[in-house]
Amino acid sequence: MESKSCFIQSKENGVQGKRIHGNGVHHAAKTGSIKPAEQKARKPRWNIRASEMSRNTLNPIRAIVDCMKLTPNPDKPMIALSIGDPTVFGNLPTDENVLQAMKNAIDSHKYNGYAPSVGYMQSRESVAKFYSCPEAPLEGKDVILTSGCSQAIDLAISVLCNPGQNILAPCPGFSLYKTLAVSLGIQVKLYNLQPEKCWEIDLHHLESLIDEKTTCLIVNNPSNPCGSVYSKEHLQQILAVASRHCIPILADEIYADMVFPGCGFHSLAALSTDVPILSCGGLAKRWLVPGWRMGWILIHDRAQAFGPEIREGLVKLSQRILGPCTIVQGALDCILNNTPQDFYSNTISLIQSNSQICYNALSTIPGLSPVKPSGAMYLMVGIEMKHFPSFQSDVDFTERLVTEQSVFCLPATAFDYPNFFRIVVTVPQHMMVEACGRIREFCQAHYCPSSPDRNDLDQ
Amino acid sequence: MESKSCFIQSKENGVQGKRIHGNGVHHAAKTGSIKPAEQKARKPRWNIRASEMSRNTLNPIRAIVDCMKLTPNPDKPMIALSIGDPTVFGNLPTDENVLQAMKNAIDSHKYNGYAPSVGYMQSRESVAKFYSCPEAPLEGKDVILTSGCSQAIDLAISVLCNPGQNILAPCPGFSLYKTLAVSLGIQVKLYNLQPEKCWEIDLHHLESLIDEKTTCLIVNNPSNPCGSVYSKEHLQQILAVASRHCIPILADEIYADMVFPGCGFHSLAALSTDVPILSCGGLAKRWLVPGWRMGWILIHDRAQAFGPEIREGLVKLSQRILGPCTIVQGALDCILNNTPQDFYSNTISLIQSNSQICYNALSTIPGLSPVKPSGAMYLMVGIEMKHFPSFQSDVDFTERLVTEQSVFCLPATAFDYPNFFRIVVTVPQHMMVEACGRIREFCQAHYCPSSPDRNDLDQ
Repeated sequence: MESKSCFIQSKENGVQGKRIHGNGVHHAAKTGSIKPAEQKARKPRWNIRASEMSRNTLNPIRAIVDCMKLTPNPDKPMIALSIGDPTVFGNLPTDENVLQAMKNAIDSHKYNGYAPSVGYMQSRESVAKFYSCPEAPLEGKDVILTSGCSQAIDLAISVLCNPGQNILAPCPGFSLYKTLAVSLGIQVKLYNLQPEKCWEIDLHHLESLIDEKTTCLIVNNPSNPCGSVYSKEHLQQILAVASRHCIPILADEIYADMVFPGCGFHSLAALSTDVPILSCGGLAKRWLVPGWRMGWILIHDRAQAFGPEIREGLVKLSQRILGPCTIVQGALDCILNNTPQDFYSNTISLIQSNSQICYNALSTIPGLSPVKPSGAMYLMVGIEMKHFPSFQSDVDFTERLVTEQSVFCLPATAFDYPNFFRIVVTVPQHMMVEACGRIREFCQAHYCPSSPDRNDLDQ
Repeated sequence: MESKSCFIQSKENGVQGKRIHGNGVHHAAKTGSIKPAEQKARKPRWNIRASEMSRNTLNPIRAIVDCMKLTPNPDKPMIALSIGDPTVFGNLPTDENVLQAMKNAIDSHKYNGYAPSVGYMQSRESVAKFYSCPEAPLEGKDVILTSGCSQAIDLAISVLCNPGQNILAPCPGFSLYKTLAVSLGIQVKLYNLQPEKCWEIDLHHLESLIDEKTTCLIVNNPSNPCGSVYSKEHLQQILAVASRHCIPILADEIYADMVFPGCGFHSLAALSTDVPILSCGGLAKRWLVPGWRMGWILIHDRAQAFGPEIREGLVKLSQRILGPCTIVQGALDCILNNTPQDFYSNTISLIQSNSQICYNALSTIPGLSPVKPSGAMYLMVGIEMKHFPSFQSDVDFTERLVTEQSVFCLPATAFDYPNFFRIVVTVPQHMMVEACGRIREFCQAHYCPSSPDRNDLDQ
């Protein structure tokens, strides 16, 4: 069972333990300089270095935002369209049933002790029942509860990959995949999404990246930062690639079911009969409580490609720090089953309405190319940089947008995708309208039409 | 900023992205066998292996307990003295103020969004104020909130050690240190505690283990599994060793202040002016809510040996999966400040009373050597194996104790300390009394006095 090479033991049990040379140690403690004769040579100075893992834990968003000069125009109140937290403006409160479920869990006095590291079976069964469908049935044993979707993704990557192996992740994509993988010494290969095709995956490019060290394909649908929702057909194409190359999928489906009316959400697992899938989700976005850190992994393994090994690996990894807060676990069944349908549809309505306002407004601004979203809570906007010669990059562009108009959008360089920026569309509607007006003013002030001369010069 | 070696990027932004060979991919998806000509050779079969990290994540307690045949005597109700969860018997409920603080946090609607990865500054300041003392002052910036004390220990080990380096941990000791370190490829060297000296550290042995790859000394006080509480003088001796060899300390002080009257608790940080210390703690034990997963690291670095690098490293690592549930963070100030003193002292009274009952009873049983505890919630009992020839080990002994008497104590092999077992003393008093009676009966049934002949034979 045990990796002996990492473990040295040397002890004498019982009362016969050798007595220490108490005086020598004591003396040294007082003077701080006299060393016992038997001490090994070791330079007595503090030289504490942070580990390689901590130095390799990179947060591209922080790295970029922290270097930006974000000084708003004092004449205009700041509008932050940069924060992927739907709760910050107060216009999207969670449902009262959700809060009541928490208070009931507290009053029951039943959820204060340790839960199993993968969560209470009862709570796991609630999640299984909620997400089970005939095409992809789930039982309690197929669910692992985690401290937020972040830990779900962490466990999924950690169980599938060794240092030196690689994973495939979308570009543009959520930066956490890279943060987690790189900190574990796992290589990240980015496959292209295609803005002109509603951010569908460039399957040819995806396939070209696969090699014998590829152990995981990450698919994020609906997408952060794109707001895209894949069709059944496209998801089947993705599954076909995974199936052909025998690569398991990590499906980041934290925005599951957050799609605009008329645009169905399909889980990858429901469309496959052979590809093993770890689907990561949680309460954060759909129930609007990201701070509660309730996530899960749904293990879909009908063809037994994961087998017991991956399940056991996930259980073992979950024992490192245990899972989510037991009060939230105790509330989970009520949260999933008692939240009224209206709550979900009201959230979607607000997001869709804001998306439309934003897309319509930005579509008419020369130099910008917004990509119409179908779900999640984001919208990506291309910047035709040649028309904005005064800016060197999307970072420069968005920085100046703050300085001049007090509107902050995240430069998509943070998603490894320069010349775009991301807009979060969960803000109150009047702020969305106001922000679009200011972006228009900003673009108009800086837009330069392409001159034929310039084009000639380029040829 | 970026570790380029772990990261490959290849993309074409904007609308000019190369079109995929849609048909080829589609066709393959349908037939599942026809491969595009450009595909690399890769054996098309599933061969998914769990990562080395997951296979190296070992839980000694589970490994041992899962292999035991735990079939209780059907005539006697089971008494589990094995579970380190003070909430399981219902005799140690948390305080009503603690529960009310949670409900207030929920009703405020203020704690549903993302907190900073290291926790809300206000909550960090509450912890800092609660634990600050003139000898070891703390500010909010010195506190990192974590998902339970387990994550605190994980972050502390992760920031101080690289694979191939080593840490010093107590023997007997909490098995999580080894679980976390070994899973990260960090070697664990166990230093001896001395039962005959109230489990004080064998400083000579400790010092002999230090080499140039030693980057962390773990000190657990009060101790799980020993129930020991170190004197000021002994803690100063430990600090002197750390200071002389310039080894930072990870102080696992999750049982801080859980000491019996007359036996003061001293935090390591309050006794040092130079040794950098990461003190790990949390709500779990003292506030009797281990399932809530609220832990913290207190950074003590008055001599600036950690410097900004370790602080930044901890912040970076905290961004991997973010910290504890925001509702508990929001309740933290009230929990720390409004819990009545009576609550704490009632818990200690119950634990002390049970400890005394248990220690007194077991002291008079031939063949057992209980070690008197001074705090925490445990008591270790030595088994004089020569007097129990029918048992091969502490595992065997405790297994049969279940079979015959329906009393389950954890064999200390789970703490790398054979020939002892651990008793959890948070059970209701009548169960403690009953359990001790059964242990007596069990020992009397199996005790063999040493025969002079046998001793002669051994010589």
